[in-house]
Parts: sequence; structure tokens; C-alpha cells
Amino acid sequence: MPHLTPDSVPPALLSNVRVVLCQTSHPGNIGACARAMKTMGLEHLLLVNPKFFPHREAEAMAARATDILGQARVCADLEEALQGTVFATASTARNRDLSHPVLTPREAAVRMMEEARHGPVALVMGAEKYGLTVEEVNRCSAIATVPANPQYASLNIAAAVQLFAYELRLAALDPAPVQQAFAPASHEDLELFYVHLEQTLREVGFLDPAAPKRLMQRMRRLFVRARVEREELNILRGILAATQEAARKGGKVD
Amino acid sequence: MPHLTPDSVPPALLSNVRVVLCQTSHPGNIGACARAMKTMGLEHLLLVNPKFFPHREAEAMAARATDILGQARVCADLEEALQGTVFATASTARNRDLSHPVLTPREAAVRMMEEARHGPVALVMGAEKYGLTVEEVNRCSAIATVPANPQYASLNIAAAVQLFAYELRLAALDPAPVQQAFAPASHEDLELFYVHLEQTLREVGFLDPAAPKRLMQRMRRLFVRARVEREELNILRGILAATQEAARKGGKVD
Repeated sequence: MPHLTPDSVPPALLSNVRVVLCQTSHPGNIGACARAMKTMGLEHLLLVNPKFFPHREAEAMAARATDILGQARVCADLEEALQGTVFATASTARNRDLSHPVLTPREAAVRMMEEARHGPVALVMGAEKYGLTVEEVNRCSAIATVPANPQYASLNIAAAVQLFAYELRLAALDPAPVQQAFAPASHEDLELFYVHLEQTLREVGFLDPAAPKRLMQRMRRLFVRARVEREELNILRGILAATQEAARKGGKVD
Repeated sequence: MPHLTPDSVPPALLSNVRVVLCQTSHPGNIGACARAMKTMGLEHLLLVNPKFFPHREAEAMAARATDILGQARVCADLEEALQGTVFATASTARNRDLSHPVLTPREAAVRMMEEARHGPVALVMGAEKYGLTVEEVNRCSAIATVPANPQYASLNIAAAVQLFAYELRLAALDPAPVQQAFAPASHEDLELFYVHLEQTLREVGFLDPAAPKRLMQRMRRLFVRARVEREELNILRGILAATQEAARKGGKVD
């Protein structure tokens, strides 16, 4: 699993992605889609025959993604929007025909990022109420369906765009190896800690020297699982030292 | 990669997930979150101190997910919302402290579905403008950050809930093998442990009450990472009690 940080640079391949909204009824949804796109580094919005555009509700819902709206292209039909693309994924709530491979959003994103090396690719979304027509689906290369709750699969169109855009971003980001940010404690230091811990537990009367073994095993198991860092080990040693001192002298009590 | 169809049955583990929205300003967002949850088969919505609730805008944005709103629980604070949970993920836009492991939504979802075998788990979302406070984050077990466009990471809260709910559904449909054989300690018991630990560290003179904050954060980070088990927590509490007794009376020395 790649470790992704929010500071990852927007991957260049994402600039080869078009989001195509067909026959959108509510201009607010166009704005919300623009926002969802921008959060994941997508730029190119194409609107096939939108009911209202431009529109102040689109602006309002776009928040600070109005630049995406400003650059959006209005097209007469899907054919025009797909001009120049090498691959198009149709988002459908249900697989209504058997003429296309049906992908998950994750599979579709991986495929689209592969194809985006060769040219523009498109994610095609249907109208809010009716989705894509059979003819529109037929113009696409694959179908992708969000694995939603079968009792309630009614994703808002911007929510669906958000999911696809997220998967596209993940597919575009180069996986980097997971790294531990801090230095782990060394084996020797951990062993010294266990000796110190055992000694302290005896001094405070918790560890019975007659049957010490099981308790220390449990403690080892806990700290091994935690992958104790060097600095943390210093703190733990400090706590043990303070505990010993308090137990020997009778510590100060708040 | 598992092939998921929209006809998959809603996985039972999802009923162990709570979505906790803290200090939500816009009631429409509460409704949009309810809709996003329901599309992925999540049911339990908890609202910590919402500005307006119930509210007609919440109903309007929930579409046919108003049943989620009807069952939503309003809580006075995050502590109340986390009662009974065994794991909580804080969603943050940026990693603002170093006290927790930072997960991707995908990693967080896998982890939450593992923990959901043992009891309720929570996804905790902050207020729209300001996110979660440090104190709220500290009450959670892990941080998750959506790998967004660094130039524009401003996901709508319902869009973020949609992404997490989607990843949770995928993780529930494709369960990872069971890893932790023992029961994890509950949130409340861990909080009581931290109180006890802090008190003990003061009594042995290790914790300076004038500047207590950083040390306890580091301790939380260590024990969160270790995923302390119930029985281990009992041992740790026993050690603390023995330490206090030794510090007060002057303990026995070998």
C-alpha cells in the first residue's frame, strides 16, 4: 500500500483527464463537481448540453474552484466532448448492458492512468435523474460502477466525481516506500530497558521474584508491538529512574 | 483487486461504524453526510454540539437518507460520542502534531474494519472551517488525511465522509485476515489509564505540573501505536498502583 502525503505534487498525468458531465440539470452540481475535481488535481471540465451554465449556483458551489468553471468547455453532444480522447469511462449506477467491461472505480482509474500516457482520457457522468443513455455508454470504452449500498445507491453526482477523482489521484501518484519518521530504539537499548523495568517492578513490589517470567514476557510483547523509538525509550528510562528514586526515598506526593 | 458489484450485501461490520461530526456549522452538510453514509451502508451518525439540528436544510440535503438523520444522536462533547468505541480515526486536512500515526483513508478503513470485529469504531470529522482541535485529535487512536491536491485541499465535509465511507465499504467487502488475537482496551479504559499515568508521573516527580502537556502526548502516541490490550491495560494499571503505593510509603527495596 503506497504511503501518500498531502504534500505530494499534483501528478502530471492528471492533466490528461477530462471530466464530462452530460445534460446536468442543477448548476449547483456543476460547481460541486468542479470543487471535487480540484481537490484531487483534475482541471478539465466539459459540459454536454447543460441546462444552466454559467450560473451563480455553480459559482457558489465551486468555492475556490471557480477557475475550473471559467475554463469549462460547453459541448453540443458527447461526441464533441470525446474528440481527441484515447479512452473514456462511463459512470453508471447499474450495468444495463453487457457490451462493455464493468470496472470498479479503482480498476477504471488504474486503466485510465495507463491510457493517459498516450493521450486524453475521459470520465463521463450522466444526468442526475436518468444517467447516461445507451447511446452515450456505447461511445465509451468501459463502464465503471461505484460499489454502493444496493438498498440506496443514490450518490450525488459530485460525490461520485469525488470518488473517481480520488481514485485517479491515487493511481497517478507514484507509490513511495513507507518510512518510520523517527529512529527506532536499538535492540541493546531495549534489552537494557527490560532489565531496568524488571528491577523497578521488583522495587515497587509489583513483580514477585519467585515467579517473574510471565509478566516480563507480556511487557516485552507490548513494547515490541509499539516499535519504541529512541527518544521514547529515553523517556521511559527516565520514568523508571524517577520511580526508583521515589520508591527508595518515599517520593514527593502532590 | 477484488471485483465488487453493486449487488453486494451491506457488510455487517459497517453497522459497527459511527460517523461523528463535531461542531458542524451548516445543517445542509449534516444532511449531505447522511446521504453519503447511506450510499455506502453506514447508519450511525453522531453530532457533537451541532450549530443547527434538526433543520430543514439537513432534511433537504439528505435526500432519501432522512432515516439516518432521524436516528442521529446529538452529544455534548466528543468524549460522549466515543463512549464504548474501541478505535477512533480523526480526519484532518494536515498532520498538525506528531502524536499519532498518520494513515491514508484506505489504511484507516482497513484498520477500522479490523477493530470493528471487537466493538464500535468511529470516524471523527471536525468543523467545516477549523477542523478538529488538538484535544479532540488526542482522544482518537489515529489520524487519517485524504491525499488531496496541495494547492487546493478543501474537500467539502460530505465529500470527505463519502471517501471514507467508500473505503470502509471496500474494506468491509474484502476483509483482511484477523491479526490481533486479543481484545483491545476500550477508549474509556485507556483514558482512565492516561489520567492514572499522569497522576503517577507527578507523584514520582517525573512530570512537571507546570509543563505537563508534551510528555503525556508522547506517552499517548506510544500506547496508541501499541494498541494496548485489555489485559495489558490491567497490568499497567497494577504497575501504576504499586508505584504510587511505593512512592507514598517508601517502597520495599531488594
